[in-house]
Parts: sequence; structure tokens; C-alpha cells
Amino acid sequence: MDAVRVNFALADGRKIVASTAVGTSLLDSAKHANVPIDAPCAGNMTCGKCRVRVVRGEVESPKNRHINDAESAQGWVLACVSTLRGDIEVEVPVEASAYQSGIRVSSSDNPREEAARTAITGILARLGHTLVEGYELREVSLSVPTLDDAQADQERLLHALAGSTGVSEERISVGIGALRVLPHALRETDFTVVATIQTESNGNLTILDVSSKNEAPLGLAIDIGTTTVSALLTDLSTGQILASGSAGNGQIRFGADVINRLIESTRAGGLERLREAIVTECLQPLVRSLVESINRRASSIVRVAVAGNTTMIHLFTGVYGNHLRLEPYVPAFFSLEGLRGSELMAEVNPDARVLLAPAVGSYVGGDITAGVLASMIGRSDSFSMLIDLGTNGEIVFGNSDFLMACACSAGPAFEGGDISCGMRATDGAIEALEIDDATMNPCYKVIGEPDQKPRGVCGSGLIDAIGELYRTGIIDARGRFQREGDRIRKDEWGSTSYIIATAEEADGAKEVALNDADIENFIRAKGSVFSAIRTILAIADMDMSVIEHIYIAGGIGSAIDIEHAVGVGMLPNIPREGYSYIGNTSLAGSYAILSASEAYDELCALANNITYVELSSMPSYMDEFVAACFLPHTDASLFSR
Amino acid sequence: MDAVRVNFALADGRKIVASTAVGTSLLDSAKHANVPIDAPCAGNMTCGKCRVRVVRGEVESPKNRHINDAESAQGWVLACVSTLRGDIEVEVPVEASAYQSGIRVSSSDNPREEAARTAITGILARLGHTLVEGYELREVSLSVPTLDDAQADQERLLHALAGSTGVSEERISVGIGALRVLPHALRETDFTVVATIQTESNGNLTILDVSSKNEAPLGLAIDIGTTTVSALLTDLSTGQILASGSAGNGQIRFGADVINRLIESTRAGGLERLREAIVTECLQPLVRSLVESINRRASSIVRVAVAGNTTMIHLFTGVYGNHLRLEPYVPAFFSLEGLRGSELMAEVNPDARVLLAPAVGSYVGGDITAGVLASMIGRSDSFSMLIDLGTNGEIVFGNSDFLMACACSAGPAFEGGDISCGMRATDGAIEALEIDDATMNPCYKVIGEPDQKPRGVCGSGLIDAIGELYRTGIIDARGRFQREGDRIRKDEWGSTSYIIATAEEADGAKEVALNDADIENFIRAKGSVFSAIRTILAIADMDMSVIEHIYIAGGIGSAIDIEHAVGVGMLPNIPREGYSYIGNTSLAGSYAILSASEAYDELCALANNITYVELSSMPSYMDEFVAACFLPHTDASLFSR
Repeated sequence: MDAVRVNFALADGRKIVASTAVGTSLLDSAKHANVPIDAPCAGNMTCGKCRVRVVRGEVESPKNRHINDAESAQGWVLACVSTLRGDIEVEVPVEASAYQSGIRVSSSDNPREEAARTAITGILARLGHTLVEGYELREVSLSVPTLDDAQADQERLLHALAGSTGVSEERISVGIGALRVLPHALRETDFTVVATIQTESNGNLTILDVSSKNEAPLGLAIDIGTTTVSALLTDLSTGQILASGSAGNGQIRFGADVINRLIESTRAGGLERLREAIVTECLQPLVRSLVESINRRASSIVRVAVAGNTTMIHLFTGVYGNHLRLEPYVPAFFSLEGLRGSELMAEVNPDARVLLAPAVGSYVGGDITAGVLASMIGRSDSFSMLIDLGTNGEIVFGNSDFLMACACSAGPAFEGGDISCGMRATDGAIEALEIDDATMNPCYKVIGEPDQKPRGVCGSGLIDAIGELYRTGIIDARGRFQREGDRIRKDEWGSTSYIIATAEEADGAKEVALNDADIENFIRAKGSVFSAIRTILAIADMDMSVIEHIYIAGGIGSAIDIEHAVGVGMLPNIPREGYSYIGNTSLAGSYAILSASEAYDELCALANNITYVELSSMPSYMDEFVAACFLPHTDASLFSR
Repeated sequence: MDAVRVNFALADGRKIVASTAVGTSLLDSAKHANVPIDAPCAGNMTCGKCRVRVVRGEVESPKNRHINDAESAQGWVLACVSTLRGDIEVEVPVEASAYQSGIRVSSSDNPREEAARTAITGILARLGHTLVEGYELREVSLSVPTLDDAQADQERLLHALAGSTGVSEERISVGIGALRVLPHALRETDFTVVATIQTESNGNLTILDVSSKNEAPLGLAIDIGTTTVSALLTDLSTGQILASGSAGNGQIRFGADVINRLIESTRAGGLERLREAIVTECLQPLVRSLVESINRRASSIVRVAVAGNTTMIHLFTGVYGNHLRLEPYVPAFFSLEGLRGSELMAEVNPDARVLLAPAVGSYVGGDITAGVLASMIGRSDSFSMLIDLGTNGEIVFGNSDFLMACACSAGPAFEGGDISCGMRATDGAIEALEIDDATMNPCYKVIGEPDQKPRGVCGSGLIDAIGELYRTGIIDARGRFQREGDRIRKDEWGSTSYIIATAEEADGAKEVALNDADIENFIRAKGSVFSAIRTILAIADMDMSVIEHIYIAGGIGSAIDIEHAVGVGMLPNIPREGYSYIGNTSLAGSYAILSASEAYDELCALANNITYVELSSMPSYMDEFVAACFLPHTDASLFSR
């Protein structure tokens, strides 16, 4: 087996050398060397996101619609279809790792972030739950060791704490996390330290952390999304959010959707690679950044809550979940009790209690049960619907009497995954757009500083774009281009595109354009959401008119234009005042169970009461889906006002 | 800061590239890149073990007695005193990583190994303890999932186990280790698996492991020595040893003795480097090899026992132990309860209970308390002494009424550390030696196959060599050379050596010789042991004649010749039939507490009853030591028969 060397030069300055066999794909060689190259379509040449530039040596790479001749001459290739024949040097541009890179710690000075934090911390009051108890701070003064009293630090601490609490030494233990910081803390303070003490259900005490200062015990709430991971650090004694941030899910190099991740987990070492991509590459650096931003230590994180879809939670815990995608779609677990920090990740206290939001089905996970808790649809007499639009789409319908949930394989369109110019709702994303009927020129709003140029389109911008293309007759009900003009371009591959921003107008070398494949992907995604809504209502033997509230949650972003979303036939045509966008409810629910034991109990009870509907086993679903794959729908009356 | 690149070529074929600043020592650059180069003397140019060969580029390196001119011309240097000035390529010969390399799994076909295993497993009968209970194997049959019954694997298992045991589901939990193997195990067996179930003290059940086969739960006993790590894998239900092996302690590149390790732990990232050197580089590959040798999985290891000296246990658990070496010599802990596998190492079940043999002093650790248990000196009415001769020397004296323990800083001489031709008691080590009075030629026995050539001298061989050099008058009572001949050589550094084997006679490029510095190191080491024995007896107000049994344990090896050891004034001159060599009692004690709960309870009680004597605070110790630094002693009457 001949070996070739690939020298990767990353946008952040790092160099990574991969050694692999002749005939390997460039993308595979990158995956195995942990080079972050996005591959949402998992190497099917459809998304065009794995564009990299070969600057020395050559690869075998077919022509394709994502790379034009000029780009090809400069060495640009799609990594997924490039085959290695000899040693090469490759530049990986920042766009090629847009999904997985970019840990960001949010600044509390930012008013938008401040509002988001206030919305999240408000959940406890709305739920009427009180802060978790059982974590106590206590100052302990120890005798100073001498040659005649050479007791060990731990034994000295136990002795002092037993003296001051009256609890016998046998009933107090010191966690390994506390022990690892004890020697320094004692000697920074002349042997008077502040201990974080957890009272167990049997009255025994565990010392979780010690510090030289009077510092609050920390909580960590995590939402593990298929595309984005978000986290909050809280003061457990007040519920206040001390730091928050997010990062791309490093697993995206194995595919944008959960199915491709599960397939990767069946390969040799795959489960371990996926776990590393989420834990080692993503969560741990994110948590480290959060902790450092407030000058604290990871060992002070003594309670952790995690919400995520069923696949993400399997991959996070290192449990084989491939049976999720094989009939009869069985996960290894729905809920898991008794987890401790040391079993899952290094950057928290090893004895931290870790709570997982329970799942109710293979494709309705803890992110959705957490969302049901946060949206409170299970507490209301009137009928409501929670629609979570992230990489997947999940729908929960019901009221205080019953709750039904299903998932639709919307695909990653709403987070930009299988849209050639798609991206997450971060700086440079077009989040809103209008098209002038006469000139067909667009007018858009870009996330970021006022002078930020567009780099792509996020979910809300995509809905607007399709809605406007349809409204202006540029595309027809099947998504086919009907008009011609400067902004419309046909290429040699038979593909037609609408140019939102030329390469000159855009920030970067690549234009922002929607082609007919993108439009088709979007129509399938929105059809999948709408047909799921129709199907779940049909099972309840109800009509859309019963819905009083629809809560939109998830990565699609707050800029979603309901008028457009209804106009393209994605969301039900109910009175617009019934709609609310309620943000990342998975993170909000995770925050709630972190901060209040009552919230965790309520969540477990909720999960037991949600009926999971497997759409793929519903005969009517496919008919509904086909009918919904038009703009807005084959039955246009559903969307007439 | 100018950077230089060092390309290391290791004997096993690995290439490691280090990038560091001009002016760094070659040894430091190796340490930080995890290149295994032994440095028992911690870079003081005394041991001569860090010999490597610069094959491209140049370093700044002083002439020294370990490298002769011919070797120097070939590029040989001592890494510790070589300063980097530019890019270089370095060959690291196998001898330079003799201590840390070499994971070996012992074959049960080997009669010597079989005898050692029998000796260890015999300990339970000798102690009169019964095998640990609470680990039960139970076959569980689950219903097979269908679309109509898509319960998760874990919930299905709980349901089935509750049905067959009558214990309610709420009182059963599935450990994360079991969950990680559950999906495969269920589908390999048509949903009938064998679960390893632990019964908790409150009657709750924890499923620790599941398997498709009826396989015994595994136990792991570990002895973490400063130089060598040994481990046993057992069948917890029978106590049988299924596999055993050893590896060099990777920390040796930071120094042979505990003091240099503790100093390293004070440097930035040092504690983490030391923990990795023992856990990641040494224990985990060793355990993986043992588990694979019997075709089992690491997750089946559900109980672990560890013995080691106080420093090793701090470094293994990742707890800062530097205060051990600073007055008043205080460890962070003596004993630690409630540890689980996930907190310490990856290659065991995350929920495995981990027992640590408790320490009694800063320099009398769990290895010695385990040895007291195994030697049973605390159960006898007559006075006995346990002398553990490893990298350090520890002495316990007493009977069933009292036990006293102390440690002497013997230095690493008995495991070859600060002896230029010293090595561990493995293949190629001279373990016994005689010298012809007339010709001064040696006659020696080498460990290994019959044709094995000598590579160095281990502890027992060293005692013989010094004893014979003294008996034949080649050296005098102060260790100074007195005779001349072919085997005696003076070099330009003023150093005199006795050539045991010339380069031609030896296996490798380097001769085996003892120089006057080696002899001096040995005399200090043996003086330190003997003066410790005298001091501890003096504290008990007793005489050597009261000692009925002396048990010799530790890495010095079974080949120790008591006659020579008494002859050089290292061991007390009591009737020779009072002596026994009892092997690695730290590992035997670790095996005992792994296999029997009663043994752990006895060990904890023993540890509470041992009085620790800090020799450095005993005024008489220094006088005793000075008197003992002669062959055999300034008071020769102590050794007349």
C-alpha cells in the first residue's frame, strides 16, 4: 500500500500532516487527521461546502457545478470527490470549517445577549420552581501542620469539618475533584478554605470543591445540537447566568444530519471519533473558555444538565446508537440516571451530578422534552404546538390532557446544511430578504456589524428568499425558474441560479446564490414539516383551526418571517398573533433542570406523558408529504387568507 | 525566541518531532515531546543512562566520563548536558529507554511465572479470608423489539431483570460501562445476555457489565512502583489469576526517585505530564494487553485495587503531592474511599470500585501496608521485620502488639537507577556473580535464555559484585580500589572501574563495568538501609538479636544472596534461616484486597496501627548512617559470625 502525505494549512495557522494510502479521498484523509472540513452532505458532491485549494501537487477530481473553470485553475476542488495520487499541500479556507469552528463566548455587554439571558433565567419564575438545594458553602478552619502533627490535608479537613458540623468523619467524604485542588487552596489561605458541600439523600456530606475564596458553586447547562452546541454557566445559589457561549458541532465533518453520524459510528473507531468531535474538540474547549471568562476553575462546576436529540446524547455518552436508524428504531436508552462528570467529560468536577433531559422516541429527544417544559404547552388547556426547526424538525402538539410528538426528516436546510450558500445564523448570514418585483434585485439584512457583507443565507433568510422568488414569479409552484434576467444564470451543468450577491458584493471569493437544487431541498424540507403537522393533527382527529398557539423554537433564528413561512406552505395558516418565536428552548429547558430539582421532576413526568408518533409507520404521511411539495401546497385553499 | 527542531528516531521505529527554543537541553526537549529517554539521575550527568546519538546537526555537549572519544566521534552524547543550537536528528537506542519501555504480559506456561501466581493466590488461604461477594452473574432474557414495542435497550433490560429478580425497576440502575456494550451484546444473542450485577449495601442493584457469554467478572490488582508497574487480572468469582504483566514506569524520564518526580510536579503542566506518563503511557496499554491476552474487554474489569508508595498514589490520582518533600512532609491524603474507575483511568469499567491501599506516612505508602498484610508480620507473637528493597527502602518492625515503619532514602541503586551499568531484573541483567580471587575474573549468571549476554547488573548482582570485590581485596572497606590488573581500568577522569564484561562480551555496544562512583552509591544505599534498621530497633529499645524473621521483598529480586548482603553490612547478621525472600508483597497485598473484602478491612486496621517514624527527625540516624558507610561497618563485630 503506497502512502501519500497531505499537508493541510488551516485558516487559523495550524498545520496538520496526514499520511494515508494512495486512492483515499481527500475528505477521508482530513477526517482521520481531525482536520475540520465541513461535509454536511457527507461527501455526496451536493452541498459544495468542502471546497479547499490544492497549492502543491495534484489530485484526481471531477469537474462539478460548485467549482468554475477559473477556480479550478487556481487549485480549488471539492475534498469529497478528490482522490489522492501523490503528496500534496492543501489550504483549508475559513469557509470550509464554518460549521465546526468558532467557539464564541458571548459578552454580557451585548443587549441582545442580555435579553436572551433574561428570557432564560425567567423560566424558573414562569414555571414556579425554586432553586435547587443541597449545595452549601462553608468556611472551614484547619490546624496548621507541624512535624508533630503531620496529618494529611484530607484527614485534617475531615477532622475540622466534623468538628464544625457535628457530622461524624465517617459520614463525610472528599471527592477527587476537591482533593485535586485542596493542597493549593489550603496553602493559599493559611489553612482556612471555603468548601462546597453536597448533602446526600442519606444525610452524608460530600465535599465537592474547595477554594481559597467564597465563590459560588457553578452549574453548567448544555444544549447539544446537531449543528451547534450552546452552553451556559450559572451560579447555582442564585440561578444567575455568569457566562454563555456556543460552538459548532465538530461532528459536522461526518455529515450534517444524524443519519450520516450514525453510519460513521458503525465504522472502526467511529464512535470514539464522534465522541471526541463533540467532547474533546467542542464541549471541553467551550467550557474551558466559559470558565476562564469568569476567572473560575472547571472543578467548581458541580452540577451539569444536558439536552440534545437522541442521537447526540448517544454519541455524547459514547453509547452505540446505530439501531436508532434501523427498523424498529430502538435507542439504547431514553433516560439515564446517576451519571457523574468523570464518566463524560474532563472539564467539570468529576463528582458533578449530570442530568440528561430524557427522550421520548428515537427522533424526539431530550432537546424536545426540554422544549415542552420551557414552552409550557403541557400546562395549558388550549391546544398549542411546539415546532423546533433546527437541523431536524420536531413537532409536539397537545395540551394539559395529552401531548403527541413526531419528527420529520426536514434535512439540514434550516441551518444551511444542504443549501449551497446556506450557513448558521451567525455573522455574515442573510437573515431577511425582499425582491423587487420589477428589477428582480434583492434587498437583504445581514447579521453582524452595519458594514458586514453577506457570506451566505441562514434559515430565516432562506424562507424569505424562496417566498419572494415565488411571490415575484421568478419560480413557479414546483420551484422551477420562470423568468430571465441579470440575476438569473444558467450554467453548463443545466443548473439555474438566482444570484443574491455576486462575488464582488459578497464577503469572500464566493458568490451567494440559490440554485434549483437548493430550492428543491428547501421545498422538500418545508413539505416535510407541513405534512408532519397535518399528520399529527389527523391522528388526534383534529383540524388546524384548533391550534391557538404555535411556538417556533430552534436554530432557524428569531428573524423568521411568519408571513413568508406560511406563504411558502411551511407553517399552518392560523391567525398570525398565535405565533411566537421562543428561541433555544432546549437550552432553556436544560437551564431549568440544572437550576431546579422540581423542573427535572416535571420534565421526567412530561416525558412519560408524551406519545411518540413514528411518522414513517403512518401510511398517510407519504401522501401528505407529496401534496406539500409544492408552493404553497397542492391544496392552495389551505393557505388562502 | 529562536526555535529548533529535533527529529527523534526511536528504537521501535517511531519518529517524534519536537520544536523548542535554542538553548534548551536535549533531554528537556525529549521530556516535553514524550520521547522516552531514561534519566534516573534527573539530568545530573551522574548515571550516564541518557546516551543518545546525534546523526545530523550538532549540539553543544561537554566531554564526560560516560562517553569515550570514539563514541563521541560517532555522535554519542548525554542528552541531559547537551544544549540545542540548531536543528538536529537524534537516534534513541533501546538502552536509553530500558526503564520505561517494555510492556510484557507473562505467559502462564512459564514455570517461574506459574510459581509466582500460585504464591500470590495462596495469600487468601494463608490470611484465612473468603472471596469478595456482591458480584453476581445472571442470565436475562429480554423481549425482542418490534415497531409496536420500541422500548429502549436499557429500559427493556431493567424490565426483564425486575421481572426475574423481583427487585423493582426503580432500585436497579445500569452503569454507563454496561450501557456502552449493551446494544451489541443484545443483538449478538437474540436478546439473552449475561449481566454482571453488583448488590449495593442498601440492596439496590447496579448492572456493571453485560456480555453475550457467561464470563466471569474481572478484577485488576496493580502495584505502581517508582521504577516498575505490575498488574494482575483475576476472576473475581474464583480468585484465579488469568493474566499478569509488567511495564516500566514512564515517569522515569523525570528522574528515578520520587523527589525528582515531585519537583517535576511543581512545574507548569508537570502534574498532568506525570499522570499521563503513568496512566496513559503505562497502565492503560498494560491493562489493554492483559485484557486482550484473554480475549476480554476492559469494561469487564469491575473491581480494582492499587498499591503504591505515597508519591506514586498522589501522581496516579492526579493530586498534588509536592508537600511530601517539604517539611513537615504532609501528603494530601493517606487513604481515599469511594473512588470509581472513571475518575482514574479509561481501561476499566467506569463504575468499577477502586480500592487504594492506605499509606501510613509520607514515605511509607500503601505498597508497604500491603506488604505488611501479605507478610503477616502483624499477626505473629515473635518479632519480625519486613524490608522492601525497591527504588526506595522501607522497613517495618514489630509483632502482633506493635508495628513501626520507616523509610530510608536508599536511592535507586537496588533497581539500578544510579549505577552506571545498573538495570531492572529483566533479560540481560546479571543477577548473581562471583570473582576469582587469583585472576580477578568474574563468573556470572544472566537472566534470560541460556545464551543471553549481559546488558547490565540488577540489584542482587550488584550486592554480589560489591561483596566479591571486597572479599577479594579488590576494594577496601571504604570502597576504594586496591588491586591492579586487566579487569581494573583507570580513565582520564580519575575514575577507576572494574570491568565485568567488555563491550565484546556484553550484549550491545557498551561494556558492563562498575566504577568507584557506583561503588560509593551502593555503599551509601546499603548504609542507609542498615542504619534505618538500627535506628528503628533503637527506638523500640531492642537489639537485632530479637528478630526471628526477616522478610525481604521488592524489586531487588529473588536471586538476592543473603550471605553477600550480610557480608557487605547491609542486612542484620542473624541466623540465615530467619531470612525469606517473599517477592512483590505490594502486588500480593493488592491482590488480597481486590479478592477479599476482609483483607481490605484488615489492611485498613493495620494501617491505623502502624507507627510511622520519620528518620530525618531522629538525631541518632545520621550517626548510624555514617558508621554504616563502610564495608561492612565501622563496628565490624556486628558482622562477625
